[in-house]
Amino acid sequence: MIRAKIVGAGGYGGVGIVELLLGHPEAQIACLVDVENVGEPISALYPHLAGFCDLKIIASADEQARRPVDVTFMATPDGVGMKLAPAELSAGAKVIDYSGDFRFNTPESYADYAGRIGKDPKHQAPQLLPEAVYGLTELHRTSLNRKTRLVGNPGCFAASCLLGLAPAVKNGLVELDSLICDCKTGVSGAGKKPNAAFHYPARYENMNAYKLAGHQHVCEIERELALLSGKPLRVTFTAQVVPVCRGIMSSLYGELRPGVKLADLLAAYQAFYQNSCFVRIFDRAAAIGSVQVRGTNYCNLVVDVDERTNKLRVIAYLDNLLKGQAGSALQNMNLIFSLDEKTGLDQPGKYP
Amino acid sequence: MIRAKIVGAGGYGGVGIVELLLGHPEAQIACLVDVENVGEPISALYPHLAGFCDLKIIASADEQARRPVDVTFMATPDGVGMKLAPAELSAGAKVIDYSGDFRFNTPESYADYAGRIGKDPKHQAPQLLPEAVYGLTELHRTSLNRKTRLVGNPGCFAASCLLGLAPAVKNGLVELDSLICDCKTGVSGAGKKPNAAFHYPARYENMNAYKLAGHQHVCEIERELALLSGKPLRVTFTAQVVPVCRGIMSSLYGELRPGVKLADLLAAYQAFYQNSCFVRIFDRAAAIGSVQVRGTNYCNLVVDVDERTNKLRVIAYLDNLLKGQAGSALQNMNLIFSLDEKTGLDQPGKYP
Amino acid sequence: MIRAKIVGAGGYGGVGIVELLLGHPEAQIACLVDVENVGEPISALYPHLAGFCDLKIIASADEQARRPVDVTFMATPDGVGMKLAPAELSAGAKVIDYSGDFRFNTPESYADYAGRIGKDPKHQAPQLLPEAVYGLTELHRTSLNRKTRLVGNPGCFAASCLLGLAPAVKNGLVELDSLICDCKTGVSGAGKKPNAAFHYPARYENMNAYKLAGHQHVCEIERELALLSGKPLRVTFTAQVVPVCRGIMSSLYGELRPGVKLADLLAAYQAFYQNSCFVRIFDRAAAIGSVQVRGTNYCNLVVDVDERTNKLRVIAYLDNLLKGQAGSALQNMNLIFSLDEKTGLDQPGKYP
Amino acid sequence: MIRAKIVGAGGYGGVGIVELLLGHPEAQIACLVDVENVGEPISALYPHLAGFCDLKIIASADEQARRPVDVTFMATPDGVGMKLAPAELSAGAKVIDYSGDFRFNTPESYADYAGRIGKDPKHQAPQLLPEAVYGLTELHRTSLNRKTRLVGNPGCFAASCLLGLAPAVKNGLVELDSLICDCKTGVSGAGKKPNAAFHYPARYENMNAYKLAGHQHVCEIERELALLSGKPLRVTFTAQVVPVCRGIMSSLYGELRPGVKLADLLAAYQAFYQNSCFVRIFDRAAAIGSVQVRGTNYCNLVVDVDERTNKLRVIAYLDNLLKGQAGSALQNMNLIFSLDEKTGLDQPGKYP
Repeated sequence: MIRAKIVGAGGYGGVGIVELLLGHPEAQIACLVDVENVGEPISALYPHLAGFCDLKIIASADEQARRPVDVTFMATPDGVGMKLAPAELSAGAKVIDYSGDFRFNTPESYADYAGRIGKDPKHQAPQLLPEAVYGLTELHRTSLNRKTRLVGNPGCFAASCLLGLAPAVKNGLVELDSLICDCKTGVSGAGKKPNAAFHYPARYENMNAYKLAGHQHVCEIERELALLSGKPLRVTFTAQVVPVCRGIMSSLYGELRPGVKLADLLAAYQAFYQNSCFVRIFDRAAAIGSVQVRGTNYCNLVVDVDERTNKLRVIAYLDNLLKGQAGSALQNMNLIFSLDEKTGLDQPGKYP
Repeated sequence: MIRAKIVGAGGYGGVGIVELLLGHPEAQIACLVDVENVGEPISALYPHLAGFCDLKIIASADEQARRPVDVTFMATPDGVGMKLAPAELSAGAKVIDYSGDFRFNTPESYADYAGRIGKDPKHQAPQLLPEAVYGLTELHRTSLNRKTRLVGNPGCFAASCLLGLAPAVKNGLVELDSLICDCKTGVSGAGKKPNAAFHYPARYENMNAYKLAGHQHVCEIERELALLSGKPLRVTFTAQVVPVCRGIMSSLYGELRPGVKLADLLAAYQAFYQNSCFVRIFDRAAAIGSVQVRGTNYCNLVVDVDERTNKLRVIAYLDNLLKGQAGSALQNMNLIFSLDEKTGLDQPGKYP
Repeated sequence: MIRAKIVGAGGYGGVGIVELLLGHPEAQIACLVDVENVGEPISALYPHLAGFCDLKIIASADEQARRPVDVTFMATPDGVGMKLAPAELSAGAKVIDYSGDFRFNTPESYADYAGRIGKDPKHQAPQLLPEAVYGLTELHRTSLNRKTRLVGNPGCFAASCLLGLAPAVKNGLVELDSLICDCKTGVSGAGKKPNAAFHYPARYENMNAYKLAGHQHVCEIERELALLSGKPLRVTFTAQVVPVCRGIMSSLYGELRPGVKLADLLAAYQAFYQNSCFVRIFDRAAAIGSVQVRGTNYCNLVVDVDERTNKLRVIAYLDNLLKGQAGSALQNMNLIFSLDEKTGLDQPGKYP
Repeated sequence: MIRAKIVGAGGYGGVGIVELLLGHPEAQIACLVDVENVGEPISALYPHLAGFCDLKIIASADEQARRPVDVTFMATPDGVGMKLAPAELSAGAKVIDYSGDFRFNTPESYADYAGRIGKDPKHQAPQLLPEAVYGLTELHRTSLNRKTRLVGNPGCFAASCLLGLAPAVKNGLVELDSLICDCKTGVSGAGKKPNAAFHYPARYENMNAYKLAGHQHVCEIERELALLSGKPLRVTFTAQVVPVCRGIMSSLYGELRPGVKLADLLAAYQAFYQNSCFVRIFDRAAAIGSVQVRGTNYCNLVVDVDERTNKLRVIAYLDNLLKGQAGSALQNMNLIFSLDEKTGLDQPGKYP
């Protein structure tokens, strides 16, 4: 059994990986670490876990938290993983970090990201950056194997944009300077902490764009697309929030290269994802929405062309807390422990 | 493997049991029957099932629908099960019916129920009524065994009221003529068919009482409570709908018998449910709501007393589509096939 | 023109009376006072007011806040009004207080209330209590006139319960020891301050009972019903919250006195409210819900009897921020300035 | 007093104009016409109107429906207005039509539109097309005067896109072949008729793109933008629906012309709308969303530039049932009867 430690267990990202690990046949939860609610059972914070996981939350300094584990999930905000990862790795654990701390491979690219979120641009563990793997499984599957020690799990918006654009960019089907990512997220993406903008009365019948001055996910989108295309590029990215709890819907646009037809696109997407069990491809006639991926690790892509204007148009749907967070984390864990990628994730969700 | 046929597969009750059976280690879906969408894969109606269950919906007259199975789930409206059950039973299948068709053991008690929903009071298979078991597992577990052929699954409101009142009534802790059930349901309880009252704009910011003239679930509540108390009784029942999708919250009131204290109640509830894994008991200090049972087969009970007025007050929470429908159905299937009651149901749900 | 000062202008209760006063032909807003956001225009907090009301929020110590006005709305939490009211009254303003500070006429009855909310039971302005009028207009209209200086606006739950029960209690149609108030509120009732329980992801698909140990509104319900019946009484009261923003639905139960029929009840309710323009009476066949009073000062009552159990059953609907708060406040202002009760309130709301 | 007839009174568009006219000082409702619910008071369909408007719905053939009025609102689906308008105009009424019937000035441009919605491309009253005025007041104010007889009210999506793009296009600030309109609407935009896609359980936690093959509003967007720019152009348009009731949020993108800066854009927008009381302009720092225009006739525009990619980015918010429908209709009525544009529309809405 893989013994897993979860740091930041009390947030949505923490409880998400707890729920998944409870149903995973090859893993077990070793301990739950957080800075708040220390001493309380996780099931006191999340009563739906009563009888399933009643482990107490412990402090990172707790002796029990220092026992060796096989994998540590850092379900923590930016800046935490880079401080704790070195010790975890030294103790023999693999580390999967949810934040931006290990999504970049150089201190410079990290600094650009950090600047956008008002963090210190200096990375605290730069020696680890070269070996970190960007954990969007579908793009880096070959680097996710038993030798991998450190994974930087992707941002939820970034996951949707990259899955939706990668095949077109990789195959040179769109103009690289024309990409627009118009992204809408559910509220759970903002985490568990109460906030005036996400107070129920302020949110229930409201939708709005935010962070127009620059959302940090654009860094990893541009970095990954540049790796795929072989050239630097910039995208226009708009973050919006709508009154759903779970879900991302990203509408992705680009100018088609001359002569590219819808059939070419569909073929490219199907080829690109032929071994990716969690990506489903639909055409414009499909009656799908974010609800069809809610509670699952799937990303559904509607691949389309606006022939009148010669535009690529892809609509990407995923659950920001699963394929956009804990689900991807578990998918990565499976691979770096040589398990089937789908282990513990092979569920359709519940409807309605 | 238990081969299961699902009649009425295209409704919420049908897709609910499909989802559960897909995760059940001892059962498999033999065929999906419905009167609508015949010939379409269930995953065309419910795209979240793509890759999990792509069986086509077939008509009941279809040759394939007539092959022997071990269990037939009748996820059908009132009046259908009573027509189809005799042939299913003759062919050797056990039958679990979701409707009111087999919730009563005499034609007379059925007639009272049928009158409330505007149906023909004459039962079409009265010979089967004596053997039908009322499928609220916690009240009839001893009658749910390998000899059981026919189960009448409880109504969703009834399940919440009965689980919330049974220990108090059984133990003579409340005055029998004083019971009030104030029940609120999510909208999925009304099923899949679009309707002016459940059109999103009409519903999203609205709550209302309905069927004040008499809701049919009161029949089975009174019948079951009378069985527990040994005396006939009547309850006041109010159905209300609020803008949630899944969930029932029933507030249950009764005059306490002289001398009964909160501790007596709590003890009685704990004893009554000591072998019932899906019922959790809380006191008034617990911060729980319907969301903690959403997506699960649990019923959470807050057991309380208003000392100032000497009233029992129990708040019962369950997911109307699971413990109130498909979950109970599967729990019953497990028992009548001698499996552990929790098989395929042992999940905490996902939060938020 | 009536010059109005609003203290606590930045909360939901404050912005509610601002919106109403903007549409009132005989009143104008003199100043907006609060302890937070001092110096900011109210339209910076509430951008929908841009161009309608761009007054800056000022501190209570501000010179401008001390200029004489005709009426002061204390849209403030418990404990504030009792400190500020004496000076307001001395300066010649009438005072309408939203909190429990002036809902009671004796220090003793206030102390009982204060204890339930963890406040100091000692009233800070006991000399004012005898003259305070409980501002549920329909019950105290004759005391709301140009001589009235001080109004204690009712609690939102209390308003719904009292409007729903007053005619039955006043006319001796129900047993006084049998009353149950099962109340559901929308989330705006909890105010503007973010809170874990009302964070969108925690609330959107959730309903729950709360404060089972005792909600403070029960005090004024019992006090007012006792005044109507001439005898002390106690009610069982259950507060619940459901995912709507605005709205209260209270289901009210009581044992009917011998011989009382539905027709008697309906006649009593119609007579009681014949001069009350904001109360509408419906029978059980009416298809109404909370949405029909949203955005209005109306209270809709469904008056019903469960003949099988001889119970009164009234469902009361109102908008907690209007008839349950700012609307009642304005209705009271109209009366104590000898205006038509409906002035500035005569609107149907918008649907859907 | 302006006497108004409303055809299609029973739909959301009809009840919307009823609500507005009830608060209009210079207009009164003469009669309510519809094909359904004939003989019922509008307040039976919409109980919030009880006491405000209890007029019975009558058939168009009813004698009372044929009495002369001053204005007829055709709150009807495509294809109805063109049949009824000639008689209304002959009888001396001005006509304001909500559908696409009179949004175009030539049979050819109508035919293109009609083809997209599966309607007969042949217009039934082509002789009226030349005089019809496209009723987006801010673009055609000078054509909306006492001589105007016939107004084609804009589509809700179109209104948001045109208000958001007009100043940039008019002033040559964007490349005309680069425009993308990514639009999200609330569910009320689909009208009152129940539908599987808008059934509460299917919609509450769901968002999706639809009509990717081509939404009809693109026709009027392109037509109007071409009029402003003097050149034909095509836009990419994506319709999406999210779980709000009222509201449109349109994210509008275009390649900036060389040298154009944010300040140029802001200046152009402010100049363009300097006499347009219902358009408010914000910059990227503003914390606004659709809720700030809900229940009002305002359109809020966030005017922004993505400097990294040289893109115009405007976020347009409006209430699809008001500025997107009945509000615009009333604004147009005011102008064609020489009233102040704001009459009866001058309200901030209610928050939250």
